[in-house]
Amino acid sequence: MAPSTDSGAYHSAKQSQVELSAEDPEPQRELSMFHQTLQTPFPSLANETPRIVKEEIPDLEKNGLAERAHWVMNAPNPPSLWHELVDSIKKSLISHRTKFQSLKKQPFSGAFSLLEAVFPILVWGRNYTATKFKNDLLAGLTLASLCIPQSIGYATLAKLDPQYGLYTSVVPPLIYAVMGTSREIAIGPVAVVSLLLSSMIQKLQDPEANPIAYTRLVFTVTFFAGIFQAAFGLLRLGFLVDFLSHAAIVGFVAGAAIVIGLQQLKGLLGLANFTNKTDIISVFRWNPYNFILGSSFLCFILITRFLGKRNRKLFWLPAVAPLISVILSTLIVFLTRADKHGVRIVKHIKGGLNPSSVHQLQFDSPNGSEIVKTGLIVAVVALTEAIAVGRSFASMKGYHLDGNKEMVAMGFVNIAGSLTSCYAATGSFSRTAVNYSAGCETVMSNVVMALTVLLSLQVFTRLLYFTPIAILASIILSALPGLIDLHEAYNIWKLDKFDFLACIGAFIGVLFGSVEIGLLVAVLISFAKIIVNSIQPGIEILGKLPGTDAFCEVNQYPMAIKTPGILTIRIKSSLLCFANANFINDRIFKWVSEKEVESEGNNAQGRIQLVILDVSNLMNIDTSGIVSIEELQKELVSHGTQLAIANPRWHVIHKLRQANFVEKTGGMIFLTVGEAMEAYVGPDK
Amino acid sequence: MAPSTDSGAYHSAKQSQVELSAEDPEPQRELSMFHQTLQTPFPSLANETPRIVKEEIPDLEKNGLAERAHWVMNAPNPPSLWHELVDSIKKSLISHRTKFQSLKKQPFSGAFSLLEAVFPILVWGRNYTATKFKNDLLAGLTLASLCIPQSIGYATLAKLDPQYGLYTSVVPPLIYAVMGTSREIAIGPVAVVSLLLSSMIQKLQDPEANPIAYTRLVFTVTFFAGIFQAAFGLLRLGFLVDFLSHAAIVGFVAGAAIVIGLQQLKGLLGLANFTNKTDIISVFRWNPYNFILGSSFLCFILITRFLGKRNRKLFWLPAVAPLISVILSTLIVFLTRADKHGVRIVKHIKGGLNPSSVHQLQFDSPNGSEIVKTGLIVAVVALTEAIAVGRSFASMKGYHLDGNKEMVAMGFVNIAGSLTSCYAATGSFSRTAVNYSAGCETVMSNVVMALTVLLSLQVFTRLLYFTPIAILASIILSALPGLIDLHEAYNIWKLDKFDFLACIGAFIGVLFGSVEIGLLVAVLISFAKIIVNSIQPGIEILGKLPGTDAFCEVNQYPMAIKTPGILTIRIKSSLLCFANANFINDRIFKWVSEKEVESEGNNAQGRIQLVILDVSNLMNIDTSGIVSIEELQKELVSHGTQLAIANPRWHVIHKLRQANFVEKTGGMIFLTVGEAMEAYVGPDK
Repeated sequence: MAPSTDSGAYHSAKQSQVELSAEDPEPQRELSMFHQTLQTPFPSLANETPRIVKEEIPDLEKNGLAERAHWVMNAPNPPSLWHELVDSIKKSLISHRTKFQSLKKQPFSGAFSLLEAVFPILVWGRNYTATKFKNDLLAGLTLASLCIPQSIGYATLAKLDPQYGLYTSVVPPLIYAVMGTSREIAIGPVAVVSLLLSSMIQKLQDPEANPIAYTRLVFTVTFFAGIFQAAFGLLRLGFLVDFLSHAAIVGFVAGAAIVIGLQQLKGLLGLANFTNKTDIISVFRWNPYNFILGSSFLCFILITRFLGKRNRKLFWLPAVAPLISVILSTLIVFLTRADKHGVRIVKHIKGGLNPSSVHQLQFDSPNGSEIVKTGLIVAVVALTEAIAVGRSFASMKGYHLDGNKEMVAMGFVNIAGSLTSCYAATGSFSRTAVNYSAGCETVMSNVVMALTVLLSLQVFTRLLYFTPIAILASIILSALPGLIDLHEAYNIWKLDKFDFLACIGAFIGVLFGSVEIGLLVAVLISFAKIIVNSIQPGIEILGKLPGTDAFCEVNQYPMAIKTPGILTIRIKSSLLCFANANFINDRIFKWVSEKEVESEGNNAQGRIQLVILDVSNLMNIDTSGIVSIEELQKELVSHGTQLAIANPRWHVIHKLRQANFVEKTGGMIFLTVGEAMEAYVGPDK
Repeated sequence: MAPSTDSGAYHSAKQSQVELSAEDPEPQRELSMFHQTLQTPFPSLANETPRIVKEEIPDLEKNGLAERAHWVMNAPNPPSLWHELVDSIKKSLISHRTKFQSLKKQPFSGAFSLLEAVFPILVWGRNYTATKFKNDLLAGLTLASLCIPQSIGYATLAKLDPQYGLYTSVVPPLIYAVMGTSREIAIGPVAVVSLLLSSMIQKLQDPEANPIAYTRLVFTVTFFAGIFQAAFGLLRLGFLVDFLSHAAIVGFVAGAAIVIGLQQLKGLLGLANFTNKTDIISVFRWNPYNFILGSSFLCFILITRFLGKRNRKLFWLPAVAPLISVILSTLIVFLTRADKHGVRIVKHIKGGLNPSSVHQLQFDSPNGSEIVKTGLIVAVVALTEAIAVGRSFASMKGYHLDGNKEMVAMGFVNIAGSLTSCYAATGSFSRTAVNYSAGCETVMSNVVMALTVLLSLQVFTRLLYFTPIAILASIILSALPGLIDLHEAYNIWKLDKFDFLACIGAFIGVLFGSVEIGLLVAVLISFAKIIVNSIQPGIEILGKLPGTDAFCEVNQYPMAIKTPGILTIRIKSSLLCFANANFINDRIFKWVSEKEVESEGNNAQGRIQLVILDVSNLMNIDTSGIVSIEELQKELVSHGTQLAIANPRWHVIHKLRQANFVEKTGGMIFLTVGEAMEAYVGPDK
């Protein structure tokens, strides 16, 4: 990529001489700032090229200060908003372009490298060995044993027939295996997305009244979710998923877990009517056999998990416990014919291959916009979970996950899923952890798992006739404690109170409102945080750290020394704008005039003769900000105090130049706080 | 104010040794960072006290680098959110408290200084001289001659009887004269507030159908506006007014001016029915006499204004032209009895002193909440205008205006006004400019103006019977071009595109929607600007400026030199948070790995061995930000690259410490970029 060299030249031929006021008792110096017309190459795209321009370096020993003031004033023009936008689009497309360019040059190997980028399996597949396969096989079988009961359970949570959960554990992992980059993630149905689907879709269609229409809606939503996910990835809009912050997700998932738990208690208690609401107030009545069966196997699963945690070698025990529970409880019910005594059972599960669901997608529904909206929410929540899971395990193994590529993969997973009778799949945290502990090497363990589930769909579904529903409830319930992460909530509280507010907002929103309200509350609080943080009108006093040239905040570094007669102030915001400019102006002026009043009786040394405003934090300044700095300059000058501006950033100096700040107000601008001070009191002090 | 000394101690006794990876071809250095338990006094309130702690300065020549790393890691804890809140409330109340304390100590002089603070007239009144009064008298008379016709015109704009405009030019200026701090501002009715009042209140009550009830509503809204204004000032909520940015006001006022102009065209054309809407599509039919009369005097006023601009000595000509127009046109109508030929006239104007309107305030209206809301909007718009006018003239004369004090004064002005038959008053830009040009010295010119208006209310109102309404329309129309500031709009466009968007949004919102929609659009765009600016996920490459220790952006300073093998990156945002952390992480990692691919064939020197992340811009970091830095550290290390963090701010280092960043990841933290580089390549390079 060659640097473009637009010639952006700044024209100013004024040479301004700034003198300190005559009342000033300290040694005075004149500082000339040369603003000469200078043609500078404008490097808009050249971030990566080295820029060693040795011939331009002047005799620094002699005239360094003026030369550097010149550097500040004559910086090239920053790229405009429009340029920046075009630039960032170009950059995000550049990897595609280079791939296509290499495709033109070397058609065969180019095509292959393009294929490699889309299908990472072609990269790791070449180095795949028998040893790796052995590990993946073991991990995949462990995964399958956990996945089969969970899939059936989560399907009931999504108010679908159990086989749809199993279908969702077949096609999605296979698609992900060829397109995904994560090596540990376990793809399939998860609790939160299942809850989200059922709670949003049953508003459009009652699953009890018309299960076929409901199922069609679920597939359609899954299809749109896949489209959104793939689009996010292809358009490099991955950052949209980040708008659901980590803290919000912790709160959201915990709230969803409690809602799920309350719903499942009903299954455990053997109640017939499933609730249609995701809120807390719709439970309670019971049947003792269901409860005894469910709660005893729940205890069994929880005990195996405890053992698995105590002894790392027994990690497989909690993973297979749900399957053992299903087998044992099914046997018990079959032998005792407990279903005739009120124990509710799964009954018929349709087996066989995933049937096609292409013709079940509904694009002419009257609820079109609602379906698309639900698809969007499901897409974001599912992606957020998948990427969070993928990232955390990738960083454990020390490799980097490409968010956009993952999104494309998840999108195709769900599009393919929606055509083959699967509902929305994503990365499951609990199963990914099992996969990781079981020693998986590549995403091949997902393939093993999918094939095992496929086999059991062919062979074993008939055996699940007598499986009690209470056991499914226990399996779901046993997964919930892992979703309520009190330790993380405490960490968030410790690190950032505002994040904690978003976390609690999402939690309460989901629990007492609905899934959508919880998400909305979390996003609103998160953005309020950004606004408050950005416009907080803070300023801080700087002092020089002994033995260095660094000026730091005196509260952070108590050893920093303030120079008498000079007030060095740094603006704490990244934007001097309408919302904080006047406030900052007022506060600086108040400090200066209070100092004056204090020192009126004392020696004149205490009087502030120079205010150095370190604007290095400011990324940008708007029209109100410029007006406010101009006003501050005038007020301070009429007060007998000088104002020096230190270290303006690119956009800030550009705007100050455009507003003719120096010419209009005679303001002084320096490269650093140290230079401003040197210009005033000399280099020795 | 003594510094409080909470003992905030950071406990960490771990001594971490960080070595660069073995592949590294450059000379290696070991860097020890001593994290010793240190009890540091916590200076939460001591911003203003000097902090020269000489005895703590160690032997810097010997062990400077490690010592300074120690400074970074052992900064005292920053004040918590709660502390900061309490602090800022204390600070804003401190001036009150000190006043009351001095009141206790010296009851008499203390009380007087308190009175002086509330009534600035007591301060400037002591130095008031006959010369000053002569200037103020002249300015006041000029002001009155402009104010009388404008007041009558703006009253018709507010859909009130003409005398209410004159009343509003009596009591408000008198109250402001004793409480206000601006010396130039001219208080009275203004066009935009008049329009705002009529357009919002006539939704509640038709002024044609029941003018008495309408007038009562206007007084009630004025009363609430005053209450809000005084409350903003007393509670130091002045920053709320800043949320209407300068750019938004330019657009808003221009939009309002066009709406007013279209309404007034009807008056000029002599149409009977006044429109009730503030939008563009409600005009046109006409009467030739009205039009001829109005437009010829409009030409006269505009010509005098042109002459006044050409010759600064004739500044009084445009100021008295409206009064001359009123007198001449009234004479013409009286002599020709043109009212019998379709020329609409003012007819009876009630003269005399301002009558009390205490009993006209309506607190039991069914539209209570609407009235309070309208009061709030009027309060904000009026304050915004008054403070903008006051500030711009104060900065011309080089004195500082206390925003909160101004708000309290404006609040009392409107509360008193609402009790004496005045509607909402504020600072008029056009009249303030006349006052300034006429050479006013103090706010005494307002008193002269008020008394002149009072006199004319007693004596001359009967003479205004034959004043044609077309003249009032011409006077209002002639004031409008001053409200449409194309030059400023161009300036805004030049300086800040986003500000221009807010400006245009407000303009279009007012013109095609309503006043409220215009305000809402402007505020929303302004806040969107803040969010976009804050979370923009930018990073920039730094290089060392030759001859200095400063590291600056290579695009801004093309002479900056990059050190081979080291990538110095600065985050451009002030907040590393959920919305930008992953994006920044991805981009840094991509740069590092692209560099690697590029240099694979070339010399090993091109490979990046150290990434220095300058976080000096970051004011804060949230939980997502911390997780993302931890992930970046792990990814870079597994890539054979080191990560060094330079210049963390107070809250950032505090949170990194709380998250045990150094202990968990072995990350390196330095005081400055220079120190990080020194630790790696030695001080000579």
